[in-house]
Amino acid sequence: MKRDFLTLHNWSSEELKKLIATAIKLKKENKDNVKHHLLEGKKLAMIFEKPSTRTRVSFEVGMYELGGYPLYLSANDIQLNRGESIKDTARTLSRYVDGIMIRTKGHNIIEELAEHASIPVINGLTDDFHPCQVMADVQTIYEYTGTYDVKVAFIGDGNNMAQSWLFGAAKFGMDISVASPEGYECKADIVKAAAAEAKVTGAKIEMVRNPLEAVENADIVITDTWASMGQESEKEARKKIFADYQVNRALMDATGKKSYFMHCMPAYIGQEVSEEIYESDISIIWDEAENRLHAQKAVMLKVMG
Amino acid sequence: MKRDFLTLHNWSSEELKKLIATAIKLKKENKDNVKHHLLEGKKLAMIFEKPSTRTRVSFEVGMYELGGYPLYLSANDIQLNRGESIKDTARTLSRYVDGIMIRTKGHNIIEELAEHASIPVINGLTDDFHPCQVMADVQTIYEYTGTYDVKVAFIGDGNNMAQSWLFGAAKFGMDISVASPEGYECKADIVKAAAAEAKVTGAKIEMVRNPLEAVENADIVITDTWASMGQESEKEARKKIFADYQVNRALMDATGKKSYFMHCMPAYIGQEVSEEIYESDISIIWDEAENRLHAQKAVMLKVMG
Amino acid sequence: MKRDFLTLHNWSSEELKKLIATAIKLKKENKDNVKHHLLEGKKLAMIFEKPSTRTRVSFEVGMYELGGYPLYLSANDIQLNRGESIKDTARTLSRYVDGIMIRTKGHNIIEELAEHASIPVINGLTDDFHPCQVMADVQTIYEYTGTYDVKVAFIGDGNNMAQSWLFGAAKFGMDISVASPEGYECKADIVKAAAAEAKVTGAKIEMVRNPLEAVENADIVITDTWASMGQESEKEARKKIFADYQVNRALMDATGKKSYFMHCMPAYIGQEVSEEIYESDISIIWDEAENRLHAQKAVMLKVMG
Repeated sequence: MKRDFLTLHNWSSEELKKLIATAIKLKKENKDNVKHHLLEGKKLAMIFEKPSTRTRVSFEVGMYELGGYPLYLSANDIQLNRGESIKDTARTLSRYVDGIMIRTKGHNIIEELAEHASIPVINGLTDDFHPCQVMADVQTIYEYTGTYDVKVAFIGDGNNMAQSWLFGAAKFGMDISVASPEGYECKADIVKAAAAEAKVTGAKIEMVRNPLEAVENADIVITDTWASMGQESEKEARKKIFADYQVNRALMDATGKKSYFMHCMPAYIGQEVSEEIYESDISIIWDEAENRLHAQKAVMLKVMG
Repeated sequence: MKRDFLTLHNWSSEELKKLIATAIKLKKENKDNVKHHLLEGKKLAMIFEKPSTRTRVSFEVGMYELGGYPLYLSANDIQLNRGESIKDTARTLSRYVDGIMIRTKGHNIIEELAEHASIPVINGLTDDFHPCQVMADVQTIYEYTGTYDVKVAFIGDGNNMAQSWLFGAAKFGMDISVASPEGYECKADIVKAAAAEAKVTGAKIEMVRNPLEAVENADIVITDTWASMGQESEKEARKKIFADYQVNRALMDATGKKSYFMHCMPAYIGQEVSEEIYESDISIIWDEAENRLHAQKAVMLKVMG
Repeated sequence: MKRDFLTLHNWSSEELKKLIATAIKLKKENKDNVKHHLLEGKKLAMIFEKPSTRTRVSFEVGMYELGGYPLYLSANDIQLNRGESIKDTARTLSRYVDGIMIRTKGHNIIEELAEHASIPVINGLTDDFHPCQVMADVQTIYEYTGTYDVKVAFIGDGNNMAQSWLFGAAKFGMDISVASPEGYECKADIVKAAAAEAKVTGAKIEMVRNPLEAVENADIVITDTWASMGQESEKEARKKIFADYQVNRALMDATGKKSYFMHCMPAYIGQEVSEEIYESDISIIWDEAENRLHAQKAVMLKVMG
């Protein structure tokens, strides 16, 4: 039975923690120059309906390092943009390759792809979820703090990152507080589902309006761009709406403890984060970016190995 | 002396049957996880002037599985679209790689490329021919029927698929009946050349107007999209012209025997084929798609090995 | 300490001559089918902000032949074109790969990239310099003449090729004469810097107006397109301005000796070069193109090995 990696929802806490452990082990071996071609002969189709730097490079390098082969398929290169259905794309690719990674728009698209593919599908970002990024984030937090017993504050748009983090916190037993302006909160049904998960691990999930309230006692402060890909036209309007949601010195000070700053990038400095914080010692964004590679290698090994 | 694979015309029946035998062997070994890096160190440039899913993925995966390296070159990525001549592109690539696969428009383009390249050129589709698809089709038919002694009916546009199939039938000694509406028949000179080939093998080639006549006693019914890439503007007009050429239950019943349905995809369900037939047990399109991989590996081994 | 390959300026004559020797050795071993995976496990990100045939294919094939992995990143595929800074792109890629090759516009862009990357950066063309092409040119000249003691004439636009050649001549101790129309000369500060370098090796650098004067006694006559990428709108105007700068039989005869013709391609035949010369025996452009592969393998080995 194939396993997809579409959200963290269908993966147990134990499984996810094992993935983090594998990621940390793979990272160490990588630095020690240990090669193991655990996916030798395996092919991963990588479909991008939106551009990407980190997702693209980390998956492509990850497959190469595992001895497999990544196929980069931009939506324009294949028939998907000429009207071939998701269902037929799924069935066709299942005959040629061993897994699919897709960056797409509606989360329903990836669900349909996974339904009709006989091979595992990995979510490289949808409008609703970005689970690989959260895995990289969790790995980074664990590396810096040595524990999952932390409080995370997510400041800003209740987008795919915020929503994925709700599940991430719930599954790993972290407390999370999300501060978003009115009208930009996480979807209610996702909050509800994550809250149900949180009961199992004892994580505390909190949705608030005030960023200062969210960061109180937070070990980690995370933000994301105010206007994601596809929302470029709303950019100016969003600048006003999110003006009070900038992560800067004042907000970091309000945690009341030593805290780290994280961001999945690309960042718009001077908007969602001040340059001071972005370039500071507490900014662990480069390790966060690097861990995309290691966390995803763990995911690929699990579903394609 | 290099061999190109531009049409089936210049290949003998014996050679083509050997290619099918190799394809079937490679497929079996693939399923048995036998690896052989017969094209280790070889490089294939893959030039796409039109988008593609099956051609792209099957060639790229095929080269990887044979231990070689595929370079995906969209026409926009290289100088071809900025006015560099086909002749110079051929001579330049000949210095770097061991073979060229190209999906282009006019068949004269691939002929010019092959003339000036010192390395083998493989046709990944031109306006006139799609020989790799026919090889995959023939392999599929042989797998399902165990013989080349079949009758094929091609229903619809006398396009590159129909024209390639004329040579395919002639070379493999299959009977073929092509039914096309007036003004959409295969080119007369191609029909003539295929008919001459057919005399050698005893294949019967027939061009008719009525689909019901074409499918009579057919073991295989093949169709293709009514408006190929580049003909999008004619789409609505063609829907009317081809209205009687849909492959559906009635047409399949008219074969008078157990027959299979084939389509090179992408398909427009409800147009050239009914959903019922497309999704039925007699639809062997997924094996047909998969066999692109195996048939092309056989071709690449032959011309680049 | 990482070394970048942005211009020839910061490399010593000895280092550059060693690179040529390595390139010639690698080429011989390539023909003898000797495989050595000296960059096994290494990843090269190749960023293209402009299309390319030779640069793209030669770097990609070169990495494969050295056992490494090339990632082709068109500017549209990554976030660079969506406003992510060069600085952040440099820092991100440094976490995933072992080197960056970039074809970009302003030379300041590659300098910024190199400054913020912790990995080596290789110049695949900027508005000011194209050092890899000059390395391939020098290798070709050495192969044909067996010496660096030659005179090179560069006819036409004082563009990145002419400017790179000033440093190439200075470093390898070749005499060079560049003939350009008024307003299209090499930048004064680059001429000055190259002249300073030339003093060390004794190379003679000369900037003239008259092509006939430039080619006098030249062993090698080089030209380039009159309108480079991005200058398409000036094409017609430039045709008039450069009309007297065509490399043709008369100009080649004016060298007064047996001379070779070179061009980095793509060429516009009938403009900067006559068809007669382009297709003649003295045209060594195909070896020149091939040597991109070998010269760049030497560079990659040096900076990434």
